[in-house]
Amino acid sequence: MGDPSHPGWGRRLDRAREGLAQGHLPALVVSTPLNITYLCGFRGSSGLLVLTPDRTILIVDGRYASAARAGSLAGGLFPIEVYAVSDTYPRALATVLADTGVAAAGFEAAQVTVATLGVWQAAAPGVTFRATEGQIERLRAIKDDHEIVILRRAGKLLSQVATGLRSWVRAGRREREVAADINGALERAGFSEPAFPTIVASGPNSAHPHARPTDRRLEAGDLVVLDFGGLLDGYCGDLTRMFGIGQVSPTAWSLYEAVRKAHAAALRAIRDGVEAASVDAEARRVLTACGFGGGILHATGHGLGLEVHEAPRLGPAQPGRTERLQAGMVCTIEPGAYVEGLGGVRLEDDVLVTNEGCEVLTEASRDLFIV
Amino acid sequence: MGDPSHPGWGRRLDRAREGLAQGHLPALVVSTPLNITYLCGFRGSSGLLVLTPDRTILIVDGRYASAARAGSLAGGLFPIEVYAVSDTYPRALATVLADTGVAAAGFEAAQVTVATLGVWQAAAPGVTFRATEGQIERLRAIKDDHEIVILRRAGKLLSQVATGLRSWVRAGRREREVAADINGALERAGFSEPAFPTIVASGPNSAHPHARPTDRRLEAGDLVVLDFGGLLDGYCGDLTRMFGIGQVSPTAWSLYEAVRKAHAAALRAIRDGVEAASVDAEARRVLTACGFGGGILHATGHGLGLEVHEAPRLGPAQPGRTERLQAGMVCTIEPGAYVEGLGGVRLEDDVLVTNEGCEVLTEASRDLFIV
Repeated sequence: MGDPSHPGWGRRLDRAREGLAQGHLPALVVSTPLNITYLCGFRGSSGLLVLTPDRTILIVDGRYASAARAGSLAGGLFPIEVYAVSDTYPRALATVLADTGVAAAGFEAAQVTVATLGVWQAAAPGVTFRATEGQIERLRAIKDDHEIVILRRAGKLLSQVATGLRSWVRAGRREREVAADINGALERAGFSEPAFPTIVASGPNSAHPHARPTDRRLEAGDLVVLDFGGLLDGYCGDLTRMFGIGQVSPTAWSLYEAVRKAHAAALRAIRDGVEAASVDAEARRVLTACGFGGGILHATGHGLGLEVHEAPRLGPAQPGRTERLQAGMVCTIEPGAYVEGLGGVRLEDDVLVTNEGCEVLTEASRDLFIV
Repeated sequence: MGDPSHPGWGRRLDRAREGLAQGHLPALVVSTPLNITYLCGFRGSSGLLVLTPDRTILIVDGRYASAARAGSLAGGLFPIEVYAVSDTYPRALATVLADTGVAAAGFEAAQVTVATLGVWQAAAPGVTFRATEGQIERLRAIKDDHEIVILRRAGKLLSQVATGLRSWVRAGRREREVAADINGALERAGFSEPAFPTIVASGPNSAHPHARPTDRRLEAGDLVVLDFGGLLDGYCGDLTRMFGIGQVSPTAWSLYEAVRKAHAAALRAIRDGVEAASVDAEARRVLTACGFGGGILHATGHGLGLEVHEAPRLGPAQPGRTERLQAGMVCTIEPGAYVEGLGGVRLEDDVLVTNEGCEVLTEASRDLFIV
């Protein structure tokens, strides 16, 4: 897999070109920003990367062209051509495609809007644009050594932040204050920013998986969901832990125990080659057996990488789509169950799929901490 | 315009329906998250809003359905139907469209990807989907009284944060440290989060308009660009001010003076009815006359609202597109010029377009502060 201290741009581009060849595509227009980042390190908010069997051309506008040429592409020590947009991106794309001489080019149908495709077609009438899906996302799902090093470190740092929760979560404090403490700890731990808005959901709010922190004060009897993550060298870590304030009800304890068992069952189900849906099914089976099947509101996990939600998806089987876990994938395991009025419980860890099972990257205790 | 203390959902939906009628559209599928927020207050990360002449149906999944029904739609006191997705969004959309009985529906071509449209068409073969563009964005460009109250307050608070810059910007400190101070001040001022990643770009870094803060320490002779914004009640404020560290070169001073003149000229050019491109042209004319025309790397301004970049666009005229400023629009005025090696200067304010000219919402001094 090469030197783990350095992103393997060349190897990533080679794999992307293998995909082109398999799809009989003379070229691919990569427009999804993080796919561009993955392939060449460029992190601007706009840009297009054109791949042909023998050329790699980054199209960027004036805001980025000088930076791109100056090599602020992280470690960009490989032959990439930079083409500066002189008027509009579609016209620049048409010029570049004409220069490569291709008659057809793939585009990323999951990112290109109907409006954008219309403009591209008008600008490059001689090129047939062919819809592709997941060409680069499939590569991104399997992490290389460089990415695994970063994601392991992110998991370790997130676990450290989790150990601090005991100092911040207590009766009388507001959800928003606790979230601010977590955000501060993420920064001190070395994350460049939160990977997503930190969730601190207490009492009735915890019944909503995507609750945003409010001014509500934590009070006795509350279940508290703490879901946070950080961005490290561009990669996302994601962790959820649970607290109880004072005495929590026997039903709340049962809910916690059910989720903990579901989490363990899901972890046991993971290994190279299994269907992603089977891991989700395991968690659901346990939650249902415990009487909380009606409280399942989301999938059991998702891939982690440059995005906080990426392939694979560990959710219910979808007709006609079988997604298998493969060694080298990094994903969350985060079963949860939610009961209106009572509250919700979610436990979330980040794992690296291996041939035999998985390596848990986030080792902080999963206990229901009573404070 | 109604009670400014409350979002005018009913009025916004009425205006959206007028747009439907003008386009002879029996229905519109709104899928752009912030367009949905604008029309009904829903802020989830996914959801679809279906408008017909007499119905408003919000399609959301299990994560959001209970919250939406419980009225956590901010101030959502109007008749909206909530339809919970049972399996997938496309199938839910097909069911809702079938229930309304429409044979055709508009969709937002600038948001819907080629892949998504394909899935919708397959799920609802009886419905003709018609591309629309800017139906809701055009409404959003003209702020109502409720939005103006928020944006005025955001401008005032941002100006207060700007007055604090003198305490944080000084030789020896790192760009990243100054950015952290600004982010802290934004939070203390009452912003829920930064509206975009804060820019602190010093010395050579200031020549890149979109530089991200680095570990570089500010040093004598540096120009420092400080570009920051905050989210207040969901609306974005955006401000850029300039510092010089110790003695800056005569050329740096000339660059600053040129941008300041361009800024003043752009402000003078704004009023209801003028072409947006003419405001941009004014700023360019001044920068070019001062000898810095080659250093212009971005448009002179952009609309501000739920998004930090929205309509109108104050950039060069585009063939076949005339965009006019209208009273009630809120936009930035942010001419800048950038010279590789020397550095860059940008001055940015937020203004409300009026019949006679504009109201500047960000009144902090635009001086080049020497520290």
